[in-house]
Amino acid sequence: MNNNHISQYKNIHPADIADYLQNLPISEAIQVFRDIPLKKAAWVLVELEHDSKAAFLDQMSSDQIAALLSEVPHDDSADIIGSLPEDKAQSVLSRLVPADSNKVAKLLKYDENSAGGIMNDRFIAVEEDMNIQEAKQLIKVQKNRNERSLYVYVVDSGHKLCGVITLRTILFGMPDRKIKKLMIPEVKAVSVNDDQEKVARMFAQYHYKSLPVIKNDRRLVGIVDATDIIDIIDQEATEDMQLMFGLSGEENIFTPWTKAMKKRLPWLYVKLLAGSAAATVISIFEPTIGQWTALAVFFPIIAAQGGSAGMQTLMITLRGITLKQIGLHDVKKAFSKELLLGFADGLAVGVAIGVIGWLWKGDIILGIIACIAMMLNMIASALAGVMVPLGLKLIKVDPALASGIFLTTITDVLGFFVLLGLGALVIHFSII
Amino acid sequence: MNNNHISQYKNIHPADIADYLQNLPISEAIQVFRDIPLKKAAWVLVELEHDSKAAFLDQMSSDQIAALLSEVPHDDSADIIGSLPEDKAQSVLSRLVPADSNKVAKLLKYDENSAGGIMNDRFIAVEEDMNIQEAKQLIKVQKNRNERSLYVYVVDSGHKLCGVITLRTILFGMPDRKIKKLMIPEVKAVSVNDDQEKVARMFAQYHYKSLPVIKNDRRLVGIVDATDIIDIIDQEATEDMQLMFGLSGEENIFTPWTKAMKKRLPWLYVKLLAGSAAATVISIFEPTIGQWTALAVFFPIIAAQGGSAGMQTLMITLRGITLKQIGLHDVKKAFSKELLLGFADGLAVGVAIGVIGWLWKGDIILGIIACIAMMLNMIASALAGVMVPLGLKLIKVDPALASGIFLTTITDVLGFFVLLGLGALVIHFSII
Repeated sequence: MNNNHISQYKNIHPADIADYLQNLPISEAIQVFRDIPLKKAAWVLVELEHDSKAAFLDQMSSDQIAALLSEVPHDDSADIIGSLPEDKAQSVLSRLVPADSNKVAKLLKYDENSAGGIMNDRFIAVEEDMNIQEAKQLIKVQKNRNERSLYVYVVDSGHKLCGVITLRTILFGMPDRKIKKLMIPEVKAVSVNDDQEKVARMFAQYHYKSLPVIKNDRRLVGIVDATDIIDIIDQEATEDMQLMFGLSGEENIFTPWTKAMKKRLPWLYVKLLAGSAAATVISIFEPTIGQWTALAVFFPIIAAQGGSAGMQTLMITLRGITLKQIGLHDVKKAFSKELLLGFADGLAVGVAIGVIGWLWKGDIILGIIACIAMMLNMIASALAGVMVPLGLKLIKVDPALASGIFLTTITDVLGFFVLLGLGALVIHFSII
Repeated sequence: MNNNHISQYKNIHPADIADYLQNLPISEAIQVFRDIPLKKAAWVLVELEHDSKAAFLDQMSSDQIAALLSEVPHDDSADIIGSLPEDKAQSVLSRLVPADSNKVAKLLKYDENSAGGIMNDRFIAVEEDMNIQEAKQLIKVQKNRNERSLYVYVVDSGHKLCGVITLRTILFGMPDRKIKKLMIPEVKAVSVNDDQEKVARMFAQYHYKSLPVIKNDRRLVGIVDATDIIDIIDQEATEDMQLMFGLSGEENIFTPWTKAMKKRLPWLYVKLLAGSAAATVISIFEPTIGQWTALAVFFPIIAAQGGSAGMQTLMITLRGITLKQIGLHDVKKAFSKELLLGFADGLAVGVAIGVIGWLWKGDIILGIIACIAMMLNMIASALAGVMVPLGLKLIKVDPALASGIFLTTITDVLGFFVLLGLGALVIHFSII
């Protein structure tokens, strides 16, 4: 069976093997993993999802991990070591050959969500005073490195970034020309401490293939490739969607239920607290409901319509914030658009509900009350859908995280209050 | 002022100019656009958002558009021509130089969401029978092309893809070695008709820098680069989030409100129809509510908790489907995880609500009813959160589009029915 596995996996991409292993019970997965040749196994480890990776690493000794890491680039090693408990991380690091361990240790210093945390050190840098012949020789020697990039970065004698030159200029240029004369001196770069989402947005905006990463003194320390950004954009989108609904931002179908619950349940309780506001409005009007039960029939409709229209606005605003489509100067634009939509949709839905209410009970007053409650609710939801996320952003709270709860609380409370308040007024004046 | 603009924009990236123009009133934006030098203006046009691009193109003659398109690659030209009305598209196409117009016309044949629709033709292909010297000469001549890719694709005499070779192998290889001997014969490729999301998932899974695109007979027709995929992944995530809430999938803050309304309002009406199911349940129990108004106070809480827990499950399932984390063999796993969560969260929230109900009215029966309704609701929402999207996928309906409506309808109807049904039973037996 073991031989079977080895031959079976030979032509399969490590990412696919990782997927396969993640579907097996952990003990069986580790058994299979041990039969994969070292080099391939190292790449499989790199490709595992966060939780599975932790489970695998937990079963391995520092020696075993160090042996695997010697097969992968420094940035992948740093990611794996960074996910280990502190003492095991040190132990693995000390078992790498010194050249590797120094470089990995350097990468480990950066926050995992920063440009430094996602960059790799597989770039080619030539010095500005070299000529083409010398640069070409350097590139020829650095065999493993220059497969990574079409761009060759140019540094001065202090290793500070001062230009960029394409691989083909070096390869087809006259041997004695100076790099300094041929390079493009304006080169975009990101700072090692920039947030990974900022870096991702630069790639999305400018379609770069790679970007150099520099320290404050412009020393070149790494590069980020477009291929590295794809994962980050997936993560970013997943996170935005999940935070809106009280998920961790990292949960997937393989996350153990106990871990998922730790994040989901507190949010449900917060939501319960928010829901109590709407429940309180209803409880205040209990006598009204007792006298006019038909009003209660509109509760789910008012809540659903206000919530839905508000979520529509919220999605556009939130996505605008994430994709940096929205700046403070766009607020007016977004605001007037959503307000118009709130009026128009509110009128269209409000009249529909009003007519339904009227036909259903033959009571035009009931229809009018439902219509007014619906319209005000939808206008409020449009306003809240723009203001709540932007307001949260202004006070530095992640708008994806809390906007939904604020929004539905506002629309529910307002919707029920108008509906029941108008109902109470009507009852009051009919009795008089 | 005009000279001002020209010098002002000289060192600004076309994507940033496009952003700036999109914030101006359209007539002013076009005025400014006309002052930008042709080459820069062409790239600005490429970078504009869909709606702004259409507005700009509408103001330009076929001659003007053709002049701009002569400055950009064929794939960008094809995207722009593809967005024009049929007759104007033909007119622009006929004004391009024949070499360009043939290539653009070929690209236009593919669906814009397919691999063919997103590929570019800026790849280098060498023939397998060439030697290194010949290949090198070919690359040296194709100046503009080989800036794009580190990989050089190898084709046979029928232009069929048969291998790949790195640029550096060609550049540093012995001049008389045959390409056939040095190339890697196993080369992954996508079909010209593959959906762009499938292509995007391949890049996310395997971290490719670029992928060749082939026809059914393996003829090489283009390449897709990782940089092209970043936009698609952003689009894909935006679309998934938007469809869930009845948005077009392409709306952003710059979309005119009338256009936004056309998509949003029908969905609100569908939601209204779905909400009527829950309203009907309540209307059936109107007498119960009249006798026991406290039950109505729980409506917003039951709806919000069931909906929230269901949306949590739904988000995980939907994202799993999009990111291809979930196959049919994972359903059991997802199902048991969510069911456990439904029970556990249902118990935790149900008991909390039960205790609140009991303390609030001093009525333990009310607490028990609310608790049971909440628990059943949350279990149902967990089941629905897995089953609804997978079921919709099975019958080929986009799960992002309709899952939310089905889910909240199920949880609302069930929650209200259990709450009011139990309430009615209690009333019935108390009277007896």
